[in-house]
Amino acid sequence: MDCIFCKIAKGEIDSAKIWENEDVMAFLDASPDTKGHCLVVPKKHFEDIFDIDREILKKIIVAVQDISVKIKESLGALGVNIASNNKGISGQIVPHFHMHIIPRYEGDGLVMYGPRPEKIKKESLEDLRNIAAQIK
Amino acid sequence: MDCIFCKIAKGEIDSAKIWENEDVMAFLDASPDTKGHCLVVPKKHFEDIFDIDREILKKIIVAVQDISVKIKESLGALGVNIASNNKGISGQIVPHFHMHIIPRYEGDGLVMYGPRPEKIKKESLEDLRNIAAQIK
Repeated sequence: MDCIFCKIAKGEIDSAKIWENEDVMAFLDASPDTKGHCLVVPKKHFEDIFDIDREILKKIIVAVQDISVKIKESLGALGVNIASNNKGISGQIVPHFHMHIIPRYEGDGLVMYGPRPEKIKKESLEDLRNIAAQIK
Repeated sequence: MDCIFCKIAKGEIDSAKIWENEDVMAFLDASPDTKGHCLVVPKKHFEDIFDIDREILKKIIVAVQDISVKIKESLGALGVNIASNNKGISGQIVPHFHMHIIPRYEGDGLVMYGPRPEKIKKESLEDLRNIAAQIK
Protein backbone atom coordinates (compact mmCIF):
# COMPACT_ATOMS: atom_id res chain seq x y z
CA MET A 1 0.00 0.00 0.00
CA ASP A 2 1.27 3.46 -0.86
CA CYS A 3 0.74 5.01 2.58
CA ILE A 4 3.22 7.63 3.75
CA PHE A 5 2.69 6.83 7.47
CA CYS A 6 3.17 3.10 6.85
CA LYS A 7 6.46 3.97 5.14
CA ILE A 8 7.50 6.21 8.03
CA ALA A 9 6.59 3.46 10.51
CA LYS A 10 8.71 0.96 8.54
CA GLY A 11 11.62 3.43 8.34
CA GLU A 12 11.35 3.60 4.54
CA ILE A 13 10.86 7.36 4.85
CA ASP A 14 13.03 9.30 7.30
CA SER A 15 11.39 11.02 10.24
CA ALA A 16 12.28 12.59 13.58
CA LYS A 17 11.03 9.84 15.86
CA ILE A 18 10.26 10.71 19.47
CA TRP A 19 8.50 7.65 20.88
CA GLU A 20 7.98 4.02 19.92
CA ASN A 21 6.78 0.69 21.15
CA GLU A 22 5.77 -2.50 19.36
CA ASP A 23 2.50 -1.10 18.00
CA VAL A 24 2.76 2.68 18.13
CA MET A 25 5.13 5.33 16.86
CA ALA A 26 5.35 9.10 17.25
CA PHE A 27 7.32 11.49 15.07
CA LEU A 28 7.51 15.24 14.60
CA ASP A 29 5.23 16.82 11.99
CA ALA A 30 7.34 18.12 9.11
CA SER A 31 5.14 21.25 8.88
CA PRO A 32 4.64 21.98 12.57
CA ASP A 33 2.09 24.40 13.96
CA THR A 34 4.36 24.90 16.98
CA LYS A 35 7.65 23.47 18.25
CA GLY A 36 7.24 19.79 19.12
CA HIS A 37 4.05 19.27 17.07
CA CYS A 38 3.97 15.53 16.57
CA LEU A 39 1.82 12.71 15.24
CA VAL A 40 1.07 9.49 17.09
CA VAL A 41 0.23 6.61 14.75
CA PRO A 42 -0.34 2.85 14.82
CA LYS A 43 2.42 0.98 13.00
CA LYS A 44 -0.19 -1.23 11.38
CA HIS A 45 -2.46 0.46 8.87
CA PHE A 46 -5.87 1.58 10.05
CA GLU A 47 -7.74 4.28 8.27
CA ASP A 48 -9.45 6.18 11.08
CA ILE A 49 -11.35 5.98 14.37
CA PHE A 50 -14.03 3.89 12.66
CA ASP A 51 -11.80 0.91 11.89
CA ILE A 52 -8.84 1.04 14.27
CA ASP A 53 -8.29 -1.96 16.53
CA ARG A 54 -9.44 -1.14 20.05
CA GLU A 55 -6.37 -2.45 21.87
CA ILE A 56 -4.07 -0.46 19.61
CA LEU A 57 -6.22 2.63 20.11
CA LYS A 58 -5.69 2.29 23.86
CA LYS A 59 -1.94 2.11 23.32
CA ILE A 60 -2.10 5.26 21.22
CA ILE A 61 -3.88 7.31 23.89
CA VAL A 62 -1.39 6.11 26.50
CA ALA A 63 1.42 7.26 24.20
CA VAL A 64 -0.35 10.61 23.71
CA GLN A 65 -0.38 11.08 27.47
CA ASP A 66 3.26 10.08 27.92
CA ILE A 67 4.42 12.33 25.12
CA SER A 68 2.31 15.28 26.32
CA VAL A 69 3.97 15.05 29.73
CA LYS A 70 7.43 14.77 28.15
CA ILE A 71 6.82 17.77 25.87
CA LYS A 72 5.59 19.88 28.76
CA GLU A 73 8.70 19.06 30.77
CA SER A 74 11.32 19.14 28.03
CA LEU A 75 10.15 22.00 25.81
CA GLY A 76 8.43 24.12 28.42
CA ALA A 77 5.01 23.94 26.75
CA LEU A 78 2.21 25.29 28.93
CA GLY A 79 -0.48 23.02 27.46
CA VAL A 80 -1.37 20.88 24.45
CA ASN A 81 -4.12 20.54 21.89
CA ILE A 82 -4.88 16.95 20.95
CA ALA A 83 -6.68 16.43 17.66
CA SER A 84 -7.70 13.65 15.32
CA ASN A 85 -9.50 14.19 12.01
CA ASN A 86 -11.43 11.24 10.68
CA LYS A 87 -12.49 11.06 7.03
CA GLY A 88 -11.76 13.67 4.36
CA ILE A 89 -14.74 15.81 5.30
CA SER A 90 -13.13 16.47 8.69
CA GLY A 91 -9.80 17.52 7.19
CA GLN A 92 -8.01 14.16 7.38
CA ILE A 93 -5.33 14.29 4.70
CA VAL A 94 -3.43 11.04 5.27
CA PRO A 95 -5.89 8.13 5.58
CA HIS A 96 -3.85 6.36 8.28
CA PHE A 97 -5.21 7.00 11.78
CA HIS A 98 -3.23 9.62 13.68
CA MET A 99 -3.50 11.92 16.66
CA HIS A 100 -1.85 15.33 16.64
CA ILE A 101 -0.24 16.70 19.77
CA ILE A 102 0.25 20.45 19.37
CA PRO A 103 2.23 22.00 22.23
CA ARG A 104 1.18 25.51 23.25
CA TYR A 105 3.47 28.30 24.38
CA GLU A 106 3.00 31.82 25.65
CA GLY A 107 2.57 34.06 22.61
CA ASP A 108 2.78 31.23 20.06
CA GLY A 109 0.26 33.09 17.89
CA LEU A 110 -1.51 29.89 16.84
CA VAL A 111 -5.19 30.26 16.06
CA MET A 112 -6.10 26.65 16.71
CA TYR A 113 -9.79 26.80 15.78
CA GLY A 114 -11.87 28.61 13.21
CA PRO A 115 -14.68 31.03 14.09
CA ARG A 116 -17.83 29.56 15.61
CA PRO A 117 -20.55 32.02 14.57
CA GLU A 118 -23.35 29.68 15.59
CA LYS A 119 -22.04 29.27 19.13
CA ILE A 120 -24.30 32.10 20.23
CA LYS A 121 -27.28 29.83 19.74
CA LYS A 122 -27.73 27.49 22.67
CA GLU A 123 -29.82 24.40 22.00
CA SER A 124 -32.68 23.66 24.36
CA LEU A 125 -32.38 20.59 26.57
CA GLU A 126 -35.46 19.17 24.84
CA ASP A 127 -33.91 19.50 21.39
CA LEU A 128 -30.67 17.97 22.67
CA ARG A 129 -32.53 15.04 24.21
CA ASN A 130 -34.26 14.34 20.91
CA ILE A 131 -30.87 14.11 19.23
CA ALA A 132 -29.53 11.99 22.11
CA ALA A 133 -32.42 9.58 21.62
CA GLN A 134 -31.47 9.20 17.95
CA ILE A 135 -27.88 8.36 18.87
CA LYS A 136 -28.74 5.93 21.67
CA MET B 1 -15.66 21.36 44.13
CA ASP B 2 -17.58 23.74 41.92
CA CYS B 3 -17.01 21.89 38.65
CA ILE B 4 -19.81 21.93 36.07
CA PHE B 5 -18.79 18.57 34.54
CA CYS B 6 -18.66 16.92 37.98
CA LYS B 7 -22.20 18.21 38.55
CA ILE B 8 -23.35 16.91 35.17
CA ALA B 9 -21.75 13.53 35.89
CA LYS B 10 -23.57 13.38 39.24
CA GLY B 11 -26.86 14.40 37.63
CA GLU B 12 -26.98 17.64 39.65
CA ILE B 13 -27.16 19.55 36.37
CA ASP B 14 -29.39 18.25 33.59
CA SER B 15 -27.82 17.11 30.35
CA ALA B 16 -28.65 15.10 27.24
CA LYS B 17 -26.71 11.95 28.06
CA ILE B 18 -25.79 9.62 25.20
CA TRP B 19 -23.40 7.09 26.73
CA GLU B 20 -22.34 5.95 30.15
CA ASN B 21 -20.45 3.30 32.05
CA GLU B 22 -19.05 3.16 35.57
CA ASP B 23 -16.23 5.64 34.93
CA VAL B 24 -17.14 7.57 31.81
CA MET B 25 -20.05 9.66 30.61
CA ALA B 26 -20.90 11.39 27.33
CA PHE B 27 -23.45 14.14 26.83
CA LEU B 28 -24.34 16.57 24.07
CA ASP B 29 -22.63 19.97 24.06
CA ALA B 30 -25.21 22.66 24.85
CA SER B 31 -23.63 24.97 22.24
CA PRO B 32 -22.92 22.46 19.48
CA ASP B 33 -20.72 23.12 16.48
CA THR B 34 -22.74 20.54 14.55
CA LYS B 35 -25.59 18.13 15.28
CA GLY B 36 -24.46 15.45 17.74
CA HIS B 37 -21.44 17.41 19.05
CA CYS B 38 -20.74 15.75 22.37
CA LEU B 39 -18.26 15.65 25.22
CA VAL B 40 -16.78 12.50 26.71
CA VAL B 41 -15.66 12.96 30.32
CA PRO B 42 -14.44 10.92 33.28
CA LYS B 43 -16.98 10.86 36.11
CA LYS B 44 -14.19 11.42 38.59
CA HIS B 45 -12.50 14.80 38.45
CA PHE B 46 -9.25 15.05 36.55
CA GLU B 47 -8.05 18.34 35.19
CA ASP B 48 -6.45 17.40 31.89
CA ILE B 49 -4.25 14.96 29.98
CA PHE B 50 -1.41 15.67 32.42
CA ASP B 51 -3.14 14.26 35.50
CA ILE B 52 -5.84 11.86 34.29
CA ASP B 53 -5.64 8.25 35.47
CA ARG B 54 -4.33 6.06 32.69
CA GLU B 55 -6.95 3.30 32.98
CA ILE B 56 -9.76 5.84 32.88
CA LEU B 57 -8.15 7.53 29.88
CA LYS B 58 -8.26 4.19 28.04
CA LYS B 59 -11.95 3.87 28.86
CA ILE B 60 -12.55 7.36 27.49
CA ILE B 61 -10.92 6.64 24.13
CA VAL B 62 -12.90 3.40 23.82
CA ALA B 63 -16.08 5.41 24.47
CA VAL B 64 -14.98 7.98 21.87
CA GLN B 65 -14.68 5.19 19.33
CA ASP B 66 -18.04 3.62 20.21
CA ILE B 67 -19.83 6.95 20.10
CA SER B 68 -18.17 7.97 16.83
CA VAL B 69 -19.44 4.78 15.19
CA LYS B 70 -22.93 5.29 16.65
CA ILE B 71 -23.09 8.92 15.47
CA LYS B 72 -21.98 7.96 11.98
CA GLU B 73 -24.69 5.31 11.78
CA SER B 74 -27.53 7.13 13.54
CA LEU B 75 -27.09 10.72 12.37
CA GLY B 76 -25.52 10.07 9.00
CA ALA B 77 -22.30 11.94 9.78
CA LEU B 78 -19.59 11.41 7.18
CA GLY B 79 -16.70 11.83 9.61
CA VAL B 80 -15.72 13.25 12.99
CA ASN B 81 -13.20 15.63 14.49
CA ILE B 82 -11.91 14.54 17.88
CA ALA B 83 -10.36 17.25 20.03
CA SER B 84 -9.10 17.80 23.54
CA ASN B 85 -7.73 21.09 24.83
CA ASN B 86 -5.44 20.89 27.82
CA LYS B 87 -4.70 23.96 29.96
CA GLY B 88 -6.13 27.43 29.43
CA ILE B 89 -3.51 28.39 26.88
CA SER B 90 -4.88 25.71 24.53
CA GLY B 91 -8.48 26.94 24.85
CA GLN B 92 -9.60 24.59 27.64
CA ILE B 93 -12.50 26.38 29.32
CA VAL B 94 -13.74 23.77 31.83
CA PRO B 95 -10.79 22.34 33.79
CA HIS B 96 -12.23 18.80 33.86
CA PHE B 97 -10.68 16.55 31.20
CA HIS B 98 -12.91 16.10 28.16
CA MET B 99 -12.77 15.00 24.56
CA HIS B 100 -15.00 16.62 21.96
CA ILE B 101 -16.52 14.54 19.19
CA ILE B 102 -17.70 16.85 16.41
CA PRO B 103 -19.66 15.04 13.69
CA ARG B 104 -19.16 16.33 10.15
CA TYR B 105 -21.79 16.55 7.45
CA GLU B 106 -21.82 17.56 3.81
CA GLY B 107 -22.08 21.35 3.68
CA ASP B 108 -22.03 21.82 7.46
CA GLY B 109 -20.07 25.06 6.96
CA LEU B 110 -17.89 24.44 10.02
CA VAL B 111 -14.42 25.93 9.82
CA MET B 112 -12.82 23.57 12.30
CA TYR B 113 -9.32 25.06 12.37
CA GLY B 114 -7.85 28.51 12.18
CA PRO B 115 -5.45 29.64 9.44
CA ARG B 116 -1.96 28.12 9.46
CA PRO B 117 0.14 30.82 7.77
CA GLU B 118 3.40 29.20 8.84
CA LYS B 119 2.53 25.84 7.28
CA ILE B 120 4.35 26.92 4.14
CA LYS B 121 7.64 26.60 6.00
CA LYS B 122 8.76 23.00 6.20
CA GLU B 123 11.29 22.22 8.89
CA SER B 124 14.46 20.39 7.89
CA LEU B 125 14.91 16.84 9.15
CA GLU B 126 18.01 18.01 11.00
CA ASP B 127 16.10 20.73 12.87
CA LEU B 128 13.34 18.26 13.69
CA ARG B 129 15.83 15.72 15.01
CA ASN B 130 17.33 18.33 17.30
CA ILE B 131 13.89 18.97 18.77
CA ALA B 132 13.21 15.21 18.98
CA ALA B 133 16.43 14.78 20.94
CA GLN B 134 15.22 17.40 23.44
CA ILE B 135 11.93 15.54 23.93
CA LYS B 136 13.46 12.06 24.23
